[in-house]
Amino acid sequence: MLYSKLFGKTTRTAPSEEKIISAKLLYQGGFIRESTAGRYYLLPLGLRVQQKIMQVIKEEMDKAGAQEMVTPVLHPLSLWQETNRDKSTGYELTVVKDRRNFEFALGATAEEMLVDLIRKFQLSYKDLPINLYQFSAKFRDELRARGGLLRVREFVMKDAYSFDAEEETFKKEYRNMWQTYSTIFKRMGLKTIVVESDNGYIGGEYCHEFIVESPIGESRFLIAQENSYAAHEDVAKFTKDEKNTQEALKPLQEVEAKRGNTMEEGVRLHGLPLWQQIKDVLYVDEKNRFILAIIRGDYDVNEIKLKHLVKTYKLRHAREEEIRTLIHSEPGFISPIGIKKNLDKNVQLIIVADDSLRTIKNAYGGANKKHHDCLNVNIDRDFQADIEGDIAMAQAGYTSADKNSKLEEKRGIEVGNIFQLGYYYSKKMKGAVFTDRNGQEKPYYMGCYGIGLGRTMATIVEKYHDKRGIAWPKQVAPFDVHLIGLDLTADAIKNRAFAVYQKLQEKGIDVLFDDRAEATAGEKFTDADLIGIPVRLVVSKRTGAKIEYKKRSEKTTALYELDDLKKYLNF
Amino acid sequence: MLYSKLFGKTTRTAPSEEKIISAKLLYQGGFIRESTAGRYYLLPLGLRVQQKIMQVIKEEMDKAGAQEMVTPVLHPLSLWQETNRDKSTGYELTVVKDRRNFEFALGATAEEMLVDLIRKFQLSYKDLPINLYQFSAKFRDELRARGGLLRVREFVMKDAYSFDAEEETFKKEYRNMWQTYSTIFKRMGLKTIVVESDNGYIGGEYCHEFIVESPIGESRFLIAQENSYAAHEDVAKFTKDEKNTQEALKPLQEVEAKRGNTMEEGVRLHGLPLWQQIKDVLYVDEKNRFILAIIRGDYDVNEIKLKHLVKTYKLRHAREEEIRTLIHSEPGFISPIGIKKNLDKNVQLIIVADDSLRTIKNAYGGANKKHHDCLNVNIDRDFQADIEGDIAMAQAGYTSADKNSKLEEKRGIEVGNIFQLGYYYSKKMKGAVFTDRNGQEKPYYMGCYGIGLGRTMATIVEKYHDKRGIAWPKQVAPFDVHLIGLDLTADAIKNRAFAVYQKLQEKGIDVLFDDRAEATAGEKFTDADLIGIPVRLVVSKRTGAKIEYKKRSEKTTALYELDDLKKYLNF
Repeated sequence: MLYSKLFGKTTRTAPSEEKIISAKLLYQGGFIRESTAGRYYLLPLGLRVQQKIMQVIKEEMDKAGAQEMVTPVLHPLSLWQETNRDKSTGYELTVVKDRRNFEFALGATAEEMLVDLIRKFQLSYKDLPINLYQFSAKFRDELRARGGLLRVREFVMKDAYSFDAEEETFKKEYRNMWQTYSTIFKRMGLKTIVVESDNGYIGGEYCHEFIVESPIGESRFLIAQENSYAAHEDVAKFTKDEKNTQEALKPLQEVEAKRGNTMEEGVRLHGLPLWQQIKDVLYVDEKNRFILAIIRGDYDVNEIKLKHLVKTYKLRHAREEEIRTLIHSEPGFISPIGIKKNLDKNVQLIIVADDSLRTIKNAYGGANKKHHDCLNVNIDRDFQADIEGDIAMAQAGYTSADKNSKLEEKRGIEVGNIFQLGYYYSKKMKGAVFTDRNGQEKPYYMGCYGIGLGRTMATIVEKYHDKRGIAWPKQVAPFDVHLIGLDLTADAIKNRAFAVYQKLQEKGIDVLFDDRAEATAGEKFTDADLIGIPVRLVVSKRTGAKIEYKKRSEKTTALYELDDLKKYLNF
Repeated sequence: MLYSKLFGKTTRTAPSEEKIISAKLLYQGGFIRESTAGRYYLLPLGLRVQQKIMQVIKEEMDKAGAQEMVTPVLHPLSLWQETNRDKSTGYELTVVKDRRNFEFALGATAEEMLVDLIRKFQLSYKDLPINLYQFSAKFRDELRARGGLLRVREFVMKDAYSFDAEEETFKKEYRNMWQTYSTIFKRMGLKTIVVESDNGYIGGEYCHEFIVESPIGESRFLIAQENSYAAHEDVAKFTKDEKNTQEALKPLQEVEAKRGNTMEEGVRLHGLPLWQQIKDVLYVDEKNRFILAIIRGDYDVNEIKLKHLVKTYKLRHAREEEIRTLIHSEPGFISPIGIKKNLDKNVQLIIVADDSLRTIKNAYGGANKKHHDCLNVNIDRDFQADIEGDIAMAQAGYTSADKNSKLEEKRGIEVGNIFQLGYYYSKKMKGAVFTDRNGQEKPYYMGCYGIGLGRTMATIVEKYHDKRGIAWPKQVAPFDVHLIGLDLTADAIKNRAFAVYQKLQEKGIDVLFDDRAEATAGEKFTDADLIGIPVRLVVSKRTGAKIEYKKRSEKTTALYELDDLKKYLNF
């Protein structure tokens, strides 16, 4: 490719509001341009990188036995209704009507589409396992787009769906995809940490994120010593240390408590430790049920854990007037004790207790009326939880679940994820069955596996850049070689530069050739560093019959004969 | 690929309502499955064919100097509003709102998106010409989907957009794309006829369709001897033969005419030829203007030609009550004579005359009241047209415009099209300018170029099949070789078949290997014929140490050593 002809040249400036380095460099290098927030054009250079990423993924998925196919982008909404996901995905799903008022969802993920496809076939256990994948445009109506390709509203995803006869063979496939993903990211130069994570609206029982450590990542996760355990904050488990569990139970007592609404004011008023206080957080879910989450005072509620425990998908904080008029309690003084006695008619309230309340005795907290607290509150004796479990947010410094180390907190960018789905879809969608060895119809045991291509591209830039620009790993670079011609107004040099360009291409090497006559040497070198192709070659007056060779990642240059380049460029 | 593992196996049955042979064979061969009407899954075999088609297109587009990139699928509707295409495309355009009520169009074609992209750059004449193309999902909310991949509502299109400094260089690019398209289709085994055509809602002054002749095609076109002229019925010109132009004008006369509403009844009543009658067709356009189209009685009105002449984009026939109460005329008795005198207030009527009215004298037709006709009607003397031009539908047997031959009618499938756009978009969209040699800002001179991949696939099947199934041309076949193993229960034969499979793959040949133990030889041969891979190889007890070789398109088989296959399979 002649650089003079390339559409999307470099620019020194970048949108001033852009703080994310990958967004800045991909813009300046001429890889991407924004259409509307979160929707990008991939310019020729950017598309080349995406195609390289696609190729790596395709090779490894094929090697792993998966088969590529493709579904329509518009999914009949009726399929999403079969699994209730038209509701559980919330606003992120975009719905569109055609001229006949037939409703479609813009593809966000394609579980239902794949199940609907496979149930069109009469498959038997002999046809299984099957793993089908596609590359296609996906749509997420994110509340906020940010950071170039890191969080967008439209992107190309590789999504794969596996169908097994039973859990055991599925577990092999899950492992297979796990290893395939590790290989894929490794080939692209990305070191990933595999982290237990939440499945969001995807469903199933467990899943893992592939995370590349980065301070700008949106995924916060906790990790135990030597990576023996790694989990996203939304699912991370830890050991809740015993506090005063040896203490004898004291009689429940209601006292006057002229204090403000915060936990700290409770601590100050009663002169007791924060951990002995009960923290009460009142939510309302999508069915208008009130959910009272109670937890040891030094812990915070993790809403994702809470949602899973309650089996709900939307939570909001209760409003002050709701607390007063429907619950007949008082903001800042809520208590599980007797709270259900004063509920307004038709109000349903579920008390969800974190198991950390078992690590303390004689706790204190509100009394459901203003300026009144209870002392010596004890679970089971003074109140009962409807649901008890783990709803606590893990933090750095907490003891790991196996008690062997302290948890460390890290941040990173999620570049891929793998999900066990089990029977989540195949039991909700009628007819998603195969015939087993005994001629019986059985539902498929499923998994799904995703990689966002644009985010992967941005993550590579986050990891591979310096102050002069991008430094692409070879495997995903838009070109193999950036050839610079200098002094091109001299015919002899120009001819030689074009001859080198020709020769390299004949050898099957992808070359971006900066053939501009009017640009200065400085401009050309600066552009090469910004674009970040792994190898830079220079043909100029100074190089004579030789060619200057330099790696983008190194500082030294060397002069070689064209033939000597063979060993550096593998031709 | 092992056939036993392939997702999407053959089936003998097909949807009973399916009449189109390509739809049937692609279904039976396991290439496609329908999701909802006009939206298809491409199964692994089908996707492979599409990727082969894509590869041919990519190679030729790159060779022609075009650059691949990609736009978002969701286009800001505001861009379509800049060119008024949000209205002119009618129902085919699907509009969707995001959670912030921002409106998008589902990409149907991408002229506005490309113009919006290019105006983000400050380009000069030195950067031109530029030709950018993409492969991406396109959406057309067609009233009717039909025939598998022939007319769908969602498909992958290769769309390209060229930007030139001036008309002259554009003409070269148009020629370049014309030749590139011819090469592309030729490489895929398709013989195309290039036909002048209508630009629909795309705009511009001229365009051409690449049509593959086929009785099931939706494109009807007229062709002159030795292809000296070929044009779609919507634009086809012809010579309107002189009738009684030598006759002297006779006085206009109104007579009683107790007849029905058809042309034939007029002929019968007056005993005069059909061509001497005036045909009046009354339409209403999108601005509620009435358009009275008048034409020689033996010709029909072509609504596309009429739309262009009137510069309108939607026409419907006027209803009977509108004719009576707003126009104060009578269905079947409409006449241009004096029709404007009795219009209801606020009614606008435009009289559009086909130039064929110049080929007759003393015509006859309605008199704007029931059971009354006019005789000896003559244009200019008795009525004036607001617009005069060619609105006649060409038919087989008519004389060509150059008068050298009779037109012949053909039908075909439109697989590609190329459009001159000129300044149609760049003048409507502010800022779509480059800097010319003199530092002046000038709008781009544009063209665009499309190929539908799915329709191309279906067309290839229409041309390459026999009663046993598909016979793919090599260039687009899903695999190079269909290897069949027979007698696989014998270990020696099984090992040999797998060894051949292995060996061919090592040579870089794409092999579909029918390794099923339980299927009969007959089933395997039938499947191979249905799927249509160009070369069939058989390893069986009977073939011994040799391999049976057969082309899908031929009947004869031959036995070869593996090494001998080199010259047939090019390894």
